[in-house]
Amino acid sequence: MPSTTPGTMTRTLRGVWCATLTPLGVDGRPDHARLAAHVGRIFAAGVDGIALFGTTGEGQSFSVAERRAGLEALLEAGIEPSRILAGTGCAALPETIELTRHAVMCGCAGALVLPPFFFKDVSPEGVYASYARIADEVADARLRLYLYHIPQVSGVAIPDETIARLARAYPTLIAGVKDSECNLAHSLRLLEAFPQLSIFVGFEPHLPGTICGIANLYPRLIRRLFDHAGDASHRPDLAIVERFIAVLDAYPLFPAFKALQADLTGDAAWNALRPPLMPLESATREAWLAAVAACGIARSDAPRPN
Amino acid sequence: MPSTTPGTMTRTLRGVWCATLTPLGVDGRPDHARLAAHVGRIFAAGVDGIALFGTTGEGQSFSVAERRAGLEALLEAGIEPSRILAGTGCAALPETIELTRHAVMCGCAGALVLPPFFFKDVSPEGVYASYARIADEVADARLRLYLYHIPQVSGVAIPDETIARLARAYPTLIAGVKDSECNLAHSLRLLEAFPQLSIFVGFEPHLPGTICGIANLYPRLIRRLFDHAGDASHRPDLAIVERFIAVLDAYPLFPAFKALQADLTGDAAWNALRPPLMPLESATREAWLAAVAACGIARSDAPRPN
Repeated sequence: MPSTTPGTMTRTLRGVWCATLTPLGVDGRPDHARLAAHVGRIFAAGVDGIALFGTTGEGQSFSVAERRAGLEALLEAGIEPSRILAGTGCAALPETIELTRHAVMCGCAGALVLPPFFFKDVSPEGVYASYARIADEVADARLRLYLYHIPQVSGVAIPDETIARLARAYPTLIAGVKDSECNLAHSLRLLEAFPQLSIFVGFEPHLPGTICGIANLYPRLIRRLFDHAGDASHRPDLAIVERFIAVLDAYPLFPAFKALQADLTGDAAWNALRPPLMPLESATREAWLAAVAACGIARSDAPRPN
Repeated sequence: MPSTTPGTMTRTLRGVWCATLTPLGVDGRPDHARLAAHVGRIFAAGVDGIALFGTTGEGQSFSVAERRAGLEALLEAGIEPSRILAGTGCAALPETIELTRHAVMCGCAGALVLPPFFFKDVSPEGVYASYARIADEVADARLRLYLYHIPQVSGVAIPDETIARLARAYPTLIAGVKDSECNLAHSLRLLEAFPQLSIFVGFEPHLPGTICGIANLYPRLIRRLFDHAGDASHRPDLAIVERFIAVLDAYPLFPAFKALQADLTGDAAWNALRPPLMPLESATREAWLAAVAACGIARSDAPRPN
């Protein structure tokens, strides 16, 4: 179960959250049954919650209608909304507002929201105005908004001063930051500057919250690392994951994740991505899987084959 | 009237097209009446056609529903669809496909299509697959697709090899390229490599087609430059526009365009932009308008005040 403390103004969300991959059916659309089964498996393996349709989940490749339908399908499959952070950011604010309102109506733990990301060199004032517009138009006290900072992909950073200004203006609505800049100093600065916010990082088990793509693949390993971050016993696990991350660095991230997911589950359907992302070519895929095998991750840390 | 030659395989679209600004109403939504009046004025001033909801028109800041409604409103106002290139690219392909199909149904001259632009470092294969998916799913022989290359904003280039591959695979559907890279050598290379395609640039009056933001402001000047590109008589006009572009370079492009449009038309409503873009601050606006005044553009080259 997720570590949530509703109604408090301290860090409300923490723990191991999985940036879920989105499986596709033969029609190229999100495969709801496969997705729900995947979420059930990683929850059974100790994951606290999921970030649905984030960057790892190719969220921006899916339409507003597909994102609404995907979330609703998970709820219908019995996944608790308090364990779902819904990725709701779009290039156009009216669509971000629609999806964020939908996530609130569905009872999600929060909405993970990119700034509008088409225009570059956006001013801090423009980033602030975008989030203020979302908060003002969703206009629902139940909203818990997580600012999604991933400038190396989105092209639009969320400056610290803008986070501070938003947290002052909307003290109950602005609940946290997903810091995917991959810069530990930046994450530590956010943790210190914003004690009232939940700060999620990509993979740093000694920090209070992670939204992690690797948890799709090795949920038990990530759970163990997170639970034992404070003691020396986790060092072999940490060394294994660091080896894995170093190997991963040479491959396109999301295609590599999906190829490995297909391999670990014995379900080739996981290989599919929606354009503009493409599956790994066969030779690259073989090299990647061989390199992973050499990392020494225990088979028992992966999800069971379908 | 636009210079179109339907049904031929030579360059079918050329001339002076305006990358229209999108006026907003007090509700922050596109103001259809103001937009239609603006298009009527620039057509009366000699512009051949418009690119609706491109980058200058903040197209990516508007929802699918707003973009459909904006196009339909122009048609209802009597603007001929053969004079409209509809910007239909979105981050998610299903929405690009929906808008592109809509543009075809509306009888537009073509669809101006960005590649999916959230993910960066997209492979040429991924860009190809994205456009192929659009062509295959729109599945309409009337489609005329213009590849929209603006890597400094979108973050995703359309490689020459991908243009060539698409033009071979879809010889009637791929009609042209809007080359907004602002690199004359690149535009000239495209013109030479793809004689069968309409190559539009941002502002180079000696090339066969331009989709130009300045035509919102000074349509007669751009028309004159285009018509007299081959002779020495256009040199004073060209010097004026080059001075204007040099001044513009120091200001945020679209807010500066809109501030000037408001000034030239006497209609302050033009100052509004949708976040993440923001209107110029008052002091910046004054400096910009003063700098423009010093360029020496004749008042008669601007649209008449509302």
